[in-house]
Amino acid sequence: MEHREPPGLEYIFHPRSIAVVGASTQPSGSAANVFIEPLLILDYPGAIYPINPKGGELLGLKIYPTLADVPGPVDLATICVPAPLVPQVMADCAHKGVKLAQIFTAGFSESGEAGERLEAEIAAIARRGGVRVIGPNCMGIYCPGTGLSFNPYFPRDSGAVGFLSQSGANINDVVEPGVHRGLRFSKVVSYGNACDLNECDFLEYLAGDPETQIIAMYIEGTRDGQRFVKALSQATRAKPVTILKGGRTQGGSRATLSHTSSLAGDDAVWDALCRQMGVIQAYNVEELIDILETFSFLKPPRGRNIALVGCGGGRGVLGADDCERAGLRVPRLSPEISRKLKDILPEAGASLHNPIDHPPVMAGWGGDSLLQTLRLVSGCENIDLLLAHIRLRLGFTRESVAEGVDTVIKAHRELGKPVAMALSSSGSVELYTLAHQLQQEFQQAGVPVYPTVGRAAHAISKLIGYHEQRNGVG
Amino acid sequence: MEHREPPGLEYIFHPRSIAVVGASTQPSGSAANVFIEPLLILDYPGAIYPINPKGGELLGLKIYPTLADVPGPVDLATICVPAPLVPQVMADCAHKGVKLAQIFTAGFSESGEAGERLEAEIAAIARRGGVRVIGPNCMGIYCPGTGLSFNPYFPRDSGAVGFLSQSGANINDVVEPGVHRGLRFSKVVSYGNACDLNECDFLEYLAGDPETQIIAMYIEGTRDGQRFVKALSQATRAKPVTILKGGRTQGGSRATLSHTSSLAGDDAVWDALCRQMGVIQAYNVEELIDILETFSFLKPPRGRNIALVGCGGGRGVLGADDCERAGLRVPRLSPEISRKLKDILPEAGASLHNPIDHPPVMAGWGGDSLLQTLRLVSGCENIDLLLAHIRLRLGFTRESVAEGVDTVIKAHRELGKPVAMALSSSGSVELYTLAHQLQQEFQQAGVPVYPTVGRAAHAISKLIGYHEQRNGVG
Repeated sequence: MEHREPPGLEYIFHPRSIAVVGASTQPSGSAANVFIEPLLILDYPGAIYPINPKGGELLGLKIYPTLADVPGPVDLATICVPAPLVPQVMADCAHKGVKLAQIFTAGFSESGEAGERLEAEIAAIARRGGVRVIGPNCMGIYCPGTGLSFNPYFPRDSGAVGFLSQSGANINDVVEPGVHRGLRFSKVVSYGNACDLNECDFLEYLAGDPETQIIAMYIEGTRDGQRFVKALSQATRAKPVTILKGGRTQGGSRATLSHTSSLAGDDAVWDALCRQMGVIQAYNVEELIDILETFSFLKPPRGRNIALVGCGGGRGVLGADDCERAGLRVPRLSPEISRKLKDILPEAGASLHNPIDHPPVMAGWGGDSLLQTLRLVSGCENIDLLLAHIRLRLGFTRESVAEGVDTVIKAHRELGKPVAMALSSSGSVELYTLAHQLQQEFQQAGVPVYPTVGRAAHAISKLIGYHEQRNGVG
Repeated sequence: MEHREPPGLEYIFHPRSIAVVGASTQPSGSAANVFIEPLLILDYPGAIYPINPKGGELLGLKIYPTLADVPGPVDLATICVPAPLVPQVMADCAHKGVKLAQIFTAGFSESGEAGERLEAEIAAIARRGGVRVIGPNCMGIYCPGTGLSFNPYFPRDSGAVGFLSQSGANINDVVEPGVHRGLRFSKVVSYGNACDLNECDFLEYLAGDPETQIIAMYIEGTRDGQRFVKALSQATRAKPVTILKGGRTQGGSRATLSHTSSLAGDDAVWDALCRQMGVIQAYNVEELIDILETFSFLKPPRGRNIALVGCGGGRGVLGADDCERAGLRVPRLSPEISRKLKDILPEAGASLHNPIDHPPVMAGWGGDSLLQTLRLVSGCENIDLLLAHIRLRLGFTRESVAEGVDTVIKAHRELGKPVAMALSSSGSVELYTLAHQLQQEFQQAGVPVYPTVGRAAHAISKLIGYHEQRNGVG
C-alpha cells in the first residue's frame, strides 16, 4: 500500500513540528543536539521534540522517550541513532504519521553490503509507511525562511541561491565562506545516500521554486541517469545551474563509492551533458563560490572586453594574462583615451593603456583621478566591464583606502557598465581584517569582490559564456 | 674609456655607504625617504647620506646638498629625482666614484621615444663614468644579510630564496605573503627597465651565490635572448629555478611594453625553453609562492602516490580529484590496511580507503587515532607522501585543534615519508586569525602549509616532476 504526497516538495520545507530522535542531555556529545540548537537560533516557530528513551530535558525542551509519546503531530523527524536502530525508528515514524525523515546516521550503502541491506530495509519501511526520506548519511535541510538549519552559524536571512549537495561537509564549505562573500540561500539540502528523495526530486523542486534564482549542486553521481538529464534540462531552462561534480578522476571516483556509494560515471559524458545543457561547471569549492558571487551580483556584461584598473605595472601585466587566459579580452584603448588619461594621471610610470596603472605605487587609493579614470574608461565603446584591483600591503590603513572604496562603489552606481573588484591582502591578520571589512562594504553596495584578478576573470567569463549560449552567440 | 668592475656582482650587495638622492625632510612625501627608513630598520651598518639641495636633517641623518658634498666615499646611490634631473645626478655619481646607482625614477623607455632617449643618455653617462646601474623604474636591492631594503616590513633574517623581478610591485606581492608562508630571502632584486645590469647578470650571480638555494624570477622579457638562455641553462644546472613570466597573452604582452618596455616574446618558444631547461613554471603570484614553499620545506617524495587524511567525505572526493588532476595518484590501500584502519576509526561514515576521512565531521581534530592513522598509512609500500587537510569551521577553537597540530608535526618528525598540510578557514576574521597562528606553528616545525588541497597538489607535483627530470624519469 504505497502512499505518496502530492507532487511538489514545498511541504518538506514547512514542517509544523520537528522531532530529533537520538537527542541526549549531554552537552554537545550527541549529534542530535547539533540539530536542535540551530532551530532555536533560527527561531523555528513550530514545536521541537527531542526523543530519547531516558527522558529529561535539553535546552529547555522536554525530552520524550519515543515518538509515540509526543502529544501532537510530527511532520519532520531528524534521526541520529546508531544505524542498527534506524529501522525501528523508521517504523515509529510511519506509525506516528511523520511526513519526512532526514537521517543523519551513516553506516549504510556507503559502507558495504550489510549497510546496503540495512538501507534497503529502511527505504522499504518508509515507503510502506508513507514517510519520505532524506539521506541516510546527510545533514538534511537548511531553509532560513522557515527556520530549518543544521549549523548554528548559518544566517537567518534568505537569499537567491538554492544548493543541493550529496556531501554535508561540502555544504559547510560553500555556505560558511559564501556568507562572507555576500551570498544568501533559499533552500539548502544535504541528501547523502538518497535512498528515497534524490537529486532529481530536489532539482525539479528548485527549478520551480520562485525563491531560488540560481541553483548550485555538489553531486558525486546519480542512480537514474535518464530522469536526472530530464530534471537538469528543465532546471537549466528555468535558471542558471552551476555544478561541482566530485569523482571526476580515477582516485576521486573510487572515493565517491565509499563516501555516498555513488558511481561517478564517465567524465567525458558528463562534460558533454553540461555543455549541451548550459550547466556552469565548477572544479572546486572556491570556484563554485566565485561563480555564485558573479551570478548573484554582476550585471551581465554585453561582451568580453574588460578594462583593468589597479596599482602596479607588473600586477597589471599578470592581471591581463589572467583575463585573456580566462577567455576575456584586454583591448587597447584609443590614442584619444590614452591622451585624456595622461591629463588625469600625469605621474611618470603610470601605464596609460589597458591595464591602467592607478594609483602609482606610493600614492593612496582613490581620489578624483580614480573616479575620472573609471568614468573615462567606462565611456569607451570597446570596453564592456571594469575590474578594479588592489592588494592591501603592510602599512595600508582604513584611512589610506577609504576614498578608493567609495569611488569604486560610486562608479558601480553611476556608470552604465558592470564594475567588479579584486581585493587581496598580504597575509597578515591586520590586513586580512581590513580586507574583510572592505569586502563587506563593497558587497553591501552590490559590487562583487574576488580574491584575485584571475579568479574574477574566470568566473566572469563563465557568466558571459552563459549569456552568450542563451542568446545563441559564441 | 670604459671601466668595468671585475666579473661577479657580489660587491653590489656590500656597499660601504649609501646616498639617497632626492630625499626630503617632508615626512613620507618623497619616494627617497621610502629608501632610507628600511635601511635604519634593517640596521644597515654603513653610512647613509640623504641628498637634497635644500639640506637639513632627515630621520636623524644630515642631508647633503649634492653628492660632491658627502665627506666619505659613496658605493651605492639610490636615485629618486624626477626623470629630467637623472642625467645630472648620474654625472655626479660618476664624478663621486659611485660604484652602483639604483634608479627608482620612472618615465624612461617604458613611456615612449623621449623616455628611450633619456634612458640611453643616462646609460651612456654611467658607462663612461664606470657606474653600474640597476633600473631605471625599479625598487633595487633587498638583501637582509647586509641590511639593504626598500620595504620597511621585509624581515631582517635571510633565507634560501633568491628572487629577481622586473616589477617592483610583484616583489612586494611575493615577499610579503611569502614571509607569512615561512619563506625567507637571500637576495631580491627589482631591476625594472634594465638599462645596464639585467636579468642575465643577476641570474648568473644567483646561480653561483652559495646563500641562494632556490631562484625565483618574475620576468616580462629579455633583450639578449642568447645570453639569457645561456644564463638560464647555467642556473638550472646549479639549483631549482622557478619563473613567473608576464605578458604571455596578447593583452598581457601589450601591457609589458608600457610597463618595462619589454618585448614579451613567443609563448610557445618560452614553454619549450622552460621544459628543456627544467624551469619550474608558475602562472600567478600565488602559485609562485606555493612552489617556493614546496621547494623550501618538502622533502622530495620518491613518487607520485599521495595519501589524503582529513575531515569530510566530500572534501576527500574533491581532494582526490584535485590531486589526480595535478598529476599525483591517490592509490587504493590494501584490504589489510583498510582492516587495520577500521580498528583505529570505528566510526560509521568514516572512509577507510584513500582519501581517509579523519576525523568524522563532529569530532575534534587529533588524538591517538590520527597519529595511528598517519603511521599506518606512512608504512604502506604504495604511498610516497601524506597530505593532511582541515578546514577551520565556525565553532573551532585553538583547543579543539591543538592536538591535531601536534600530531601532524609529530608525524612529520617521526615518519619516513614527507608530510604536508592543507589548512583553510571559513572566512571569518576569528578563524583566519586561528589559521594564521596554526600555519606559523606548522611552518616553524618545517611542515609546508597550503591554503587548499588543490594548490598543495599542484605545487608538490612540480617538485616531483623536477626531480623526475633530473633523475631521467618520466
